[in-house]
Amino acid sequence: MRIEVVAVGTELLLGQIADTNGAWLGEHLAAAGVASHFHQAVGDNHDRIVLALRTALARSDGVIVCGGLGPTQDDITREAIAEVMNVPLVRDAAVLERIATLFSSRGRSMAPSNARQADVPEGATVIPQQKGTAPGLICPVGRKVVYAVPGVPYEMADMFERGILPDLRRRLGERGEAVGVIASRVLRTWGMTESRLADVLAAHIGALDQTTGSERGEAATIAFLASGIEGIKVRVTVRAPDDAVARARLDAEEATVRRVLGEAAGDVVFGVDDEAIEHAVAKAVAARGVTLGLAESLTGGLASSRLVNVPGASAWFRGAVVSYATGVKHSVLGVPEGPVVSAAAAEAMAAGACRVLGADVGLSITGVAGPDPQDERPPGTVFVGLALPGGATESVELSVPGDRARVRQYATISALDLLRRRLAALPAD
Amino acid sequence: MRIEVVAVGTELLLGQIADTNGAWLGEHLAAAGVASHFHQAVGDNHDRIVLALRTALARSDGVIVCGGLGPTQDDITREAIAEVMNVPLVRDAAVLERIATLFSSRGRSMAPSNARQADVPEGATVIPQQKGTAPGLICPVGRKVVYAVPGVPYEMADMFERGILPDLRRRLGERGEAVGVIASRVLRTWGMTESRLADVLAAHIGALDQTTGSERGEAATIAFLASGIEGIKVRVTVRAPDDAVARARLDAEEATVRRVLGEAAGDVVFGVDDEAIEHAVAKAVAARGVTLGLAESLTGGLASSRLVNVPGASAWFRGAVVSYATGVKHSVLGVPEGPVVSAAAAEAMAAGACRVLGADVGLSITGVAGPDPQDERPPGTVFVGLALPGGATESVELSVPGDRARVRQYATISALDLLRRRLAALPAD
Repeated sequence: MRIEVVAVGTELLLGQIADTNGAWLGEHLAAAGVASHFHQAVGDNHDRIVLALRTALARSDGVIVCGGLGPTQDDITREAIAEVMNVPLVRDAAVLERIATLFSSRGRSMAPSNARQADVPEGATVIPQQKGTAPGLICPVGRKVVYAVPGVPYEMADMFERGILPDLRRRLGERGEAVGVIASRVLRTWGMTESRLADVLAAHIGALDQTTGSERGEAATIAFLASGIEGIKVRVTVRAPDDAVARARLDAEEATVRRVLGEAAGDVVFGVDDEAIEHAVAKAVAARGVTLGLAESLTGGLASSRLVNVPGASAWFRGAVVSYATGVKHSVLGVPEGPVVSAAAAEAMAAGACRVLGADVGLSITGVAGPDPQDERPPGTVFVGLALPGGATESVELSVPGDRARVRQYATISALDLLRRRLAALPAD
Repeated sequence: MRIEVVAVGTELLLGQIADTNGAWLGEHLAAAGVASHFHQAVGDNHDRIVLALRTALARSDGVIVCGGLGPTQDDITREAIAEVMNVPLVRDAAVLERIATLFSSRGRSMAPSNARQADVPEGATVIPQQKGTAPGLICPVGRKVVYAVPGVPYEMADMFERGILPDLRRRLGERGEAVGVIASRVLRTWGMTESRLADVLAAHIGALDQTTGSERGEAATIAFLASGIEGIKVRVTVRAPDDAVARARLDAEEATVRRVLGEAAGDVVFGVDDEAIEHAVAKAVAARGVTLGLAESLTGGLASSRLVNVPGASAWFRGAVVSYATGVKHSVLGVPEGPVVSAAAAEAMAAGACRVLGADVGLSITGVAGPDPQDERPPGTVFVGLALPGGATESVELSVPGDRARVRQYATISALDLLRRRLAALPAD
């Protein structure tokens, strides 16, 4: 079964906003075992929306159309679907009632234009609105179907889960298509370049690609995606008849990938799926029962602002000194005179962070963001300093590529990753 | 003239990467006076790429196809275009030579697969590659045209400017279509909600919408876009016969919008186009010849990390104390005992930032990110403190909406905007 996504909105064509719904729907359709061979975007124009829908219905089994369900004169997706279905629009009393209730619960009166949102093509089923004023629509067109959802991402996602997915599953069952799932898991890594990851995993990927016969459908596929401060992602994708088998296959494949990477470069996988580097640091800090303080120079608070993203960070995060000016490094953190892009400065900053902020562990970042050199060091030179319980300090020198923004991102994730690894290696209390 | 964008790549349909090329091309086509009524995305499949191209050529005057020009077996855009043109592929000696030179200049030998990138549909013109190994293609199909460019954004943008735009301009001239431009300018604001901006500008927008006759084409259009930490954007768009007239119309329209907004709410426009709030702060600080220090609690370094984005920040930015733990507020910044989400704490933090960091001006942010209340204050309560030269302090209480991430973003831009306004209002030295 193939579903085409059609995004409606002139602002999409003009590049004023990016279409994130297409990517979200593509991912979630794939996870439900539904293929999506084409996506379209079209402006707020009746004839063109009709043409886009007819084009999609000609080459796919169904369409999800996002946007154009609002109350304004620009919102004409309802009318376009009615034309494609060759039926009139009928005002739905139950939908109208829900819209009126929503307004009155907010202490506002419903504008007449909002009543248009209760117009439904004859023969369509409504997906009741819960988060906004526009309902979703399930519109049969012969044996095919047009699903209509609002363009607001969280309303769209809610209606996909609640209305579209159950209907798709029913249709897949009727067609006798294997109601399978395509599931993915992302292993998030730091410490190896993308090309080195690919090299190290090449033999394993080659073996997967050469799987043949009945086992072919069970073999995982592996892809890489460099994501700046989010690390380099290794995405494992499997097909399976159901969620439980998919999970088991992902577990097995994850274990293999971790083993292969671990043999080559140690503990490069810091998280899975939505676990960012700050979550990995939070886990490592909590496991040791220590508190953390930062001293940041070129990153200007970026590492600190990542750590406070973690719920409960106040239990272990003391704070940071952003010592951007050299004078602040000396006066606040007690960095001795001399070059501030150096191992000695990084270690003094980390120790200073512990002392000033009352933290058990100090992490520091100093370096040259560019474009000009500093202390005779080229842009991209970064020193990460660590002060550990007991007073020991150490530092690591890095050379990171890119412009100012990328140097900051790489310096931040490198420093947080180093902290994660060192904390994991500390002897237990 | 209508150009359709077709993005090629299975990863786009699976949501593994977002299509940013479509938005970029839509914006730049509009700026060149070329309409774009449809966009498509299609996977790495020969027959489907052919179908997408034929669909696009049937309903538009030309196509820009992005992606699928690489050296691997998945890269089949060249073959699909040749089928649509009904011509064979011919290996282009000059293109092959450039690819080989590129590899040898990097000290590497060219893999045989890279030679495929020199295959050109018979009758097509090459846009020579400068940044990557794949050339772009200009492929006539009857009176229409298919442009092919790599999917890598900076290669795509380079070839659009260098190869596609001149060819489009020539075609517009041949068709006798007014070779006009559509130009936009974004006024970036903070201090009014999106709905209040719309209300205040409603009469002006109504007048623009009612412009008729020969003046209709000269009237600007205005749109709003809420952009989190980037502020609320007011986009003014005009049509004009050339760049100079477009600029004059944008200047006039910008002046009108600034006047209308200024009468309602003062200096809400902090920047234009790419000028973010940190650039506005940098200008205001530089104009006063002062240095700046920050004290951040709930924002955790976010405001500071924005300020170091500005080139030359080291001339005026001393640094920040991220006093996330209450103890750090007391010990480092000298905040007196008592609730730390309060006007008194915010002012003491700002004064402490000046003292500890050796700054002339101190800016502080304290508040409740949520989800739990703190100091009996609900999530979204934020106090911004200011310490000005001479020792005066002041504070402002805000109530900002949203989850933790949005509270932090709004608190950050609100604080930086307040600083910008107060610095502008300071008496000159």
